[in-house]
Amino acid sequence: MLTPLAASSGVAGLLTDLFVVLLAAKLGDELFRRLRQPTIVGEILAGVLVGPAVLGLVDPGEVLQVFAELGVVFLLFWVGLETKLSDLREVGATALSVGVLGVVVPFAGGVGLGLALGLSTAAALFLGAALVATSVGITSAVLIELDVLDRRTSRTILGAAIVDDILALLLVAVAAGVAAAGGIDVGSIAITAAIAIAFIGFVALGGTKLLEARPALLQAPRFSESPLLPAVIICLGLAAFASQIGLAAIIGAFLAGMVVAETRDHSPIRAEVEPLYAFFPPFFFAFIGLELSLAALADGGVLLLLAGVTALAVATKFGGAYLGAIRMGRRDAAFVGVGMVPRGEVGIIVAGIGNATGTIDAELFAVVVAMSVLTTLIVPPVLRRMVVAPAPATAT
Amino acid sequence: MLTPLAASSGVAGLLTDLFVVLLAAKLGDELFRRLRQPTIVGEILAGVLVGPAVLGLVDPGEVLQVFAELGVVFLLFWVGLETKLSDLREVGATALSVGVLGVVVPFAGGVGLGLALGLSTAAALFLGAALVATSVGITSAVLIELDVLDRRTSRTILGAAIVDDILALLLVAVAAGVAAAGGIDVGSIAITAAIAIAFIGFVALGGTKLLEARPALLQAPRFSESPLLPAVIICLGLAAFASQIGLAAIIGAFLAGMVVAETRDHSPIRAEVEPLYAFFPPFFFAFIGLELSLAALADGGVLLLLAGVTALAVATKFGGAYLGAIRMGRRDAAFVGVGMVPRGEVGIIVAGIGNATGTIDAELFAVVVAMSVLTTLIVPPVLRRMVVAPAPATAT
Repeated sequence: MLTPLAASSGVAGLLTDLFVVLLAAKLGDELFRRLRQPTIVGEILAGVLVGPAVLGLVDPGEVLQVFAELGVVFLLFWVGLETKLSDLREVGATALSVGVLGVVVPFAGGVGLGLALGLSTAAALFLGAALVATSVGITSAVLIELDVLDRRTSRTILGAAIVDDILALLLVAVAAGVAAAGGIDVGSIAITAAIAIAFIGFVALGGTKLLEARPALLQAPRFSESPLLPAVIICLGLAAFASQIGLAAIIGAFLAGMVVAETRDHSPIRAEVEPLYAFFPPFFFAFIGLELSLAALADGGVLLLLAGVTALAVATKFGGAYLGAIRMGRRDAAFVGVGMVPRGEVGIIVAGIGNATGTIDAELFAVVVAMSVLTTLIVPPVLRRMVVAPAPATAT
Repeated sequence: MLTPLAASSGVAGLLTDLFVVLLAAKLGDELFRRLRQPTIVGEILAGVLVGPAVLGLVDPGEVLQVFAELGVVFLLFWVGLETKLSDLREVGATALSVGVLGVVVPFAGGVGLGLALGLSTAAALFLGAALVATSVGITSAVLIELDVLDRRTSRTILGAAIVDDILALLLVAVAAGVAAAGGIDVGSIAITAAIAIAFIGFVALGGTKLLEARPALLQAPRFSESPLLPAVIICLGLAAFASQIGLAAIIGAFLAGMVVAETRDHSPIRAEVEPLYAFFPPFFFAFIGLELSLAALADGGVLLLLAGVTALAVATKFGGAYLGAIRMGRRDAAFVGVGMVPRGEVGIIVAGIGNATGTIDAELFAVVVAMSVLTTLIVPPVLRRMVVAPAPATAT
């Protein structure tokens, strides 16, 4: 009786969810800041706390998922604003080898483990694919917090994340193809790859050229006194398009940031995007925690499997990326290797597809989700220690 | 095959919806700005265009509804930042009479029309309640655009909107009670009223007192270098709470803005909230248009009913509010009367409850929705003309 308007629209409950998640994430941030620990970890653990795993105040529904997605979209848009195409070109060869080796080694490891555990070929392929995709959102946030986004190692990680995402897209297509039809449609996968690469090349090269030629383009619309809204519309559009063709939305957002940064005077854009960057990303970090289910892990065998999968995920990604970056020297290669370790939302999505199609079971799904959460919790403190270590890193 | 990640999560489609709605709204804004027409009308009509009524590109789902709600929440938060409690006290008596008469007259008119049309008592009560609630979001946006938010007439409208919303809450409770039980539970309605009034009084008086006493409170958390996020968390929390107790979320947001404006130096808050205020409200305006269905109106009898209901809605609200404000002089009373006319989302929600409970039929529901959209389209140009009229309004 008290809430006839609210109850009928459901909006009251959704607003309350958003409030609870934002408040919890920022309290987690505050606590970890006071403890001098990485704030992202505080936000993720706040999500674990209010989510189904502990208190059950909030369920990870569609609206929170969109806020989480916009969180990582605005995070990578922000990173893109800080990045020039020439920066990426400079580290291109290293980023390519980091991306490729950082995909091949975990994929081989995951498939091998899957087959050793007696899974079907399709399930083993899914496990491999779920171990592949780096979630660059976590690492980006740490790099911003440590103020090292302009280092060569940071740019290598960003470039490698793009390569990584293209390859992950293809491997998921392969795994889904094997699961659905028992075989691989090479032609369709080639088209997927061609579209993804054409999109990235077209936006990165064409977009920056366009704004180099017409740097006042974003100020042209009269609806906005500043370039903010045109820039945000471009960001949303490229993020949506990237995710429609199967890439991560954040690749589109990152490219949008890079293109917009070519505009005449992009410092007001940074100042204006900052509130969106403050508002949305906490939902992304907390959402990772919201997805964790502890009930499925309350079993010795499952915990052992989780330990094994997590160790494999960390070791193979670190090893592959380290090998790919070795020409930068061991110290920098180790930084790049650690930076590529977080799986976050991407591994969860891949495992979700495998679970939805019946290829991998609920237990293995819960293990992959927990592995993704664990890798996002491990990386921030390690990266932090590497940056603030007594002898400063040589990569600047 | 092309979108395995996206298709499974559904997020790609939702991001695309957000992009299409934001782009359409801002193109509508741009067009109407170039035509020197009220930009809000352009945004609403853009929603009609991309929505089910015309092109059918986007359906008004839950995610868009939350973005629309946050749009009007940040709009009223912005208005609250511009308003002092003392401003409202000054116009208190007039606002009260505008609010009361602006509710009683349309309610009586709606119930009378319903009974004359042969509706059941419960349905007639719902029609009356749907004609009651002013959507102050539309008027606020026009007042901001015309830069007259600090006039006495504008403050009277804001104060009256609070009174209006409390009374609307009670009338909906009455209508829902009659529909469900065939009678009115006076005790429960008294409790609803007491909670609503206590919430508003407590926040408005206690909140401003607290921040007068400790003006640096919002700078206390370390997670934020600026007061933006603490302010946004307060806004979301009060909006969620208001809508949980059955008030409009915007009442909570408006109060939050007023309280936050008491903080030591609130000019940085305004600058920082501005991007959120640029990003979210277009979803609110476009969403009003998205909800319109033309199919249900393709009938002469229904169109006649729509004309009658709309004329009644405009005349009774204008008349009641005009009478309530008459002590301000006829010119200002007319301005207040016009400013109270838009129904927007509130009438739609009320009619939705009536429709969901089977009390009013789909045809009458479509009529109420169309009436709400029409009143939001009529008001901006009229208010604009009243402000820019040759002889300037005396109220400043």
